[in-house]
Amino acid sequence: MSNSRPRPPSDTPPKAVIHRLSLYLRELQHLIRDGSETTSSTQLGRLLGLTDAQVRKDLAHFGQFGYPGIGYRCGELVQEIKCILGTNQAWPVAIVGMGHLGQALVGYRGFEQQGFQVTVAFDIDPDKTGRTMHGVEVHHLSAIERVAREQSIRLAILAVPAAAAQEVAEVIIAAGIEGVLNFAPVTLTLPETVHRVGVDLAMELEQLSFAVVNRTQKS
Amino acid sequence: MSNSRPRPPSDTPPKAVIHRLSLYLRELQHLIRDGSETTSSTQLGRLLGLTDAQVRKDLAHFGQFGYPGIGYRCGELVQEIKCILGTNQAWPVAIVGMGHLGQALVGYRGFEQQGFQVTVAFDIDPDKTGRTMHGVEVHHLSAIERVAREQSIRLAILAVPAAAAQEVAEVIIAAGIEGVLNFAPVTLTLPETVHRVGVDLAMELEQLSFAVVNRTQKS
Repeated sequence: MSNSRPRPPSDTPPKAVIHRLSLYLRELQHLIRDGSETTSSTQLGRLLGLTDAQVRKDLAHFGQFGYPGIGYRCGELVQEIKCILGTNQAWPVAIVGMGHLGQALVGYRGFEQQGFQVTVAFDIDPDKTGRTMHGVEVHHLSAIERVAREQSIRLAILAVPAAAAQEVAEVIIAAGIEGVLNFAPVTLTLPETVHRVGVDLAMELEQLSFAVVNRTQKS
Repeated sequence: MSNSRPRPPSDTPPKAVIHRLSLYLRELQHLIRDGSETTSSTQLGRLLGLTDAQVRKDLAHFGQFGYPGIGYRCGELVQEIKCILGTNQAWPVAIVGMGHLGQALVGYRGFEQQGFQVTVAFDIDPDKTGRTMHGVEVHHLSAIERVAREQSIRLAILAVPAAAAQEVAEVIIAAGIEGVLNFAPVTLTLPETVHRVGVDLAMELEQLSFAVVNRTQKS
């Protein structure tokens, strides 16, 4: 990146730190919505169950954002984090696999709220390709290199069956896609240069099972 | 809970700590798969970008799990965390809303790997109710109280359109469901006694956009 934000020369922070940037971003967005102008590492830490030292350490990977006697300015820190995450720009995203999951994700409004827009989809089923589904054109997977280049698409959501995930991932990587969000519960073997994130929906259910088995503590 | 695991008398830890229990659990499962028998707060912290102090503090909410000079026994800590999360037992789960997302989630293998089984579904569309879709019986939503009681279902995945989410959530809560995993990007207003977790898929895309905009740092 070539913006002027100071960035310490350290190595890339661990993925979990980047994930916590998203958590900080959401909490800051909530704080702003609720009328707060400033916050602190203590408050952010309390909201997320982290020590204030951990909050400061996480943010220090990316620069110096606080003000003595004030703390963090919420709106400013939101912009800084978006800049770090790259979501200060809009991202066109492709969905690969227009089965039930792909079709559900086309209409998922949570993406657009954070700057991601599903602009195109791919499949290999002749009943789907060449059509517009949920407002998005579905191309044959064989066209992905051309379409991705034309639309400057660098991120793709892989929504194909688990058995096909590795093979299809290799096709889209060969087409120049740089980041893959993989919904299949399989680990993809891809070149180190390609970024991939797996979605683990069971973690969310674990939050619930915890809450339900421990509910007697609350009452 | 009535098991004999020692539990400190502290108040309920923050949700983010429970989320990190899931992260610890996955890392421990990976370590075991890779042949490790023991680990340490330093190693777990390094894998997740947390200080070792944060790891120890997180786990200390639930008891004392390490051994002097050894650290944590991976298999034992997996069982302890499953016990804390409640996933040492199997959970039957209902899906409410059998549109594209619901149908995709019925077949999602990531749930079963962690002890959750989708056993029943609900919808209000007469083209869907009374049928078996993807191996799961689809009942009319009006039957949820009876079916949930018969099948001892306490957790539900809400996969309905955003505009219907609040209304349907109230129906399933009235039927006795205690925990709701909500895929709609809306905040549900529910009684405090009901646990709800929202799924924010944009966070995963933010991991990717970060990685892609920062990839030049790697090379």
